[in-house]
Amino acid sequence: MSGYEVTSRNKVRRLEGRAHYDRETVHAVLDAALVCHVGIVREEGPLVVPTIFGRIDDTVYFHGSVASGNLRAMRAGTEVCVAATVVDGIVLARSLFNSSMNYQSVVAFGRSRQVSDPGEREAALKAISDHVLPGRWEDARRPDHTEDLQTAVVAVDIEQASAKVRDWGVGDEPEEDLELDVWAGVLPLRMVTGEPQPDPKLRPGIEVPGYVRDRE
Amino acid sequence: MSGYEVTSRNKVRRLEGRAHYDRETVHAVLDAALVCHVGIVREEGPLVVPTIFGRIDDTVYFHGSVASGNLRAMRAGTEVCVAATVVDGIVLARSLFNSSMNYQSVVAFGRSRQVSDPGEREAALKAISDHVLPGRWEDARRPDHTEDLQTAVVAVDIEQASAKVRDWGVGDEPEEDLELDVWAGVLPLRMVTGEPQPDPKLRPGIEVPGYVRDRE
Repeated sequence: MSGYEVTSRNKVRRLEGRAHYDRETVHAVLDAALVCHVGIVREEGPLVVPTIFGRIDDTVYFHGSVASGNLRAMRAGTEVCVAATVVDGIVLARSLFNSSMNYQSVVAFGRSRQVSDPGEREAALKAISDHVLPGRWEDARRPDHTEDLQTAVVAVDIEQASAKVRDWGVGDEPEEDLELDVWAGVLPLRMVTGEPQPDPKLRPGIEVPGYVRDRE
Repeated sequence: MSGYEVTSRNKVRRLEGRAHYDRETVHAVLDAALVCHVGIVREEGPLVVPTIFGRIDDTVYFHGSVASGNLRAMRAGTEVCVAATVVDGIVLARSLFNSSMNYQSVVAFGRSRQVSDPGEREAALKAISDHVLPGRWEDARRPDHTEDLQTAVVAVDIEQASAKVRDWGVGDEPEEDLELDVWAGVLPLRMVTGEPQPDPKLRPGIEVPGYVRDRE
């Protein structure tokens, strides 16, 4: 896979050592983030909306109610920025100035379009489901005709993107700071699952599925 | 504290039962989110940038390099949308259609302004530090004059905001779905800290501080 073209829109100008434009890295960060934040421009100014999403190749998919005003704007076709961020740790230098975060982030750009083709709609909904919880699509009841009519699916074909990754320890400290009596290092952060909480109406004898119990 | 005025910009139109406009809820969600996503409008279209932040009352603070192009636009004063999201779980209904997420999110709007007053700058930098890791501000070396000159601080005084919170189990399922042989319930998700990783250059005898070890 080739990299994304670097233009004025997606060029990382600050901390360029953290920048990546190859599709492998951009896709990996998108896949690692559970939710993304979608930016569009409305009459009053910028709007950022958190949402779950799915990815197939260079296309990001969203879904929601056909009654959603934000999705309506995206269905009509508009410039979109998709940001996905995974926080991996707090980097504690001896000075506040040199302290940082470890993270993986993607900022991607493209135009939105409504997805109407039944095949692409189904693939998109499966991609979203698989993104949140692999295995669920095969187990849960799929949308029926009435539910399908209530569901809007929107795609953003990524035209430009950049990833930023910081995954190392404390850096850039002046020599004299090393003499300070201040702890320095990395405090890792990660998302974990808790104990599955069964619905009170769960029928007896239905065990927690493996794909729920073992989700990382 | 009173609530935010509800206007066409911040009114939650979908799933209104999850909407909150009171300052307590909006502030609590902002405080619970480690990073936020900031949306601005550039010539080419929307841009969304992930960043750490701090909050004092109704003002959200960001900081970064004076060389940052994105911060430059915000320093000049522009319409900004700040979104902060905490994911609390995956809600697994028996159908994909009724499945959902548990989450807390805020979408806030305001104009950005450069922070130049030394007192407000210091309060802002402390708020950002306290937001990421309470206790660190008192322990680490604070910015010196040279570092201060390299640091831009931007404020967004929140004019409008809404919060959305979903924190319950499976709902809205049609009766017939309850008969399905599909597990239903909530898979909780939460962010946890790992074992602190000391900098290899750490001077001997400096223990992991309590505020690092005990951060939730």
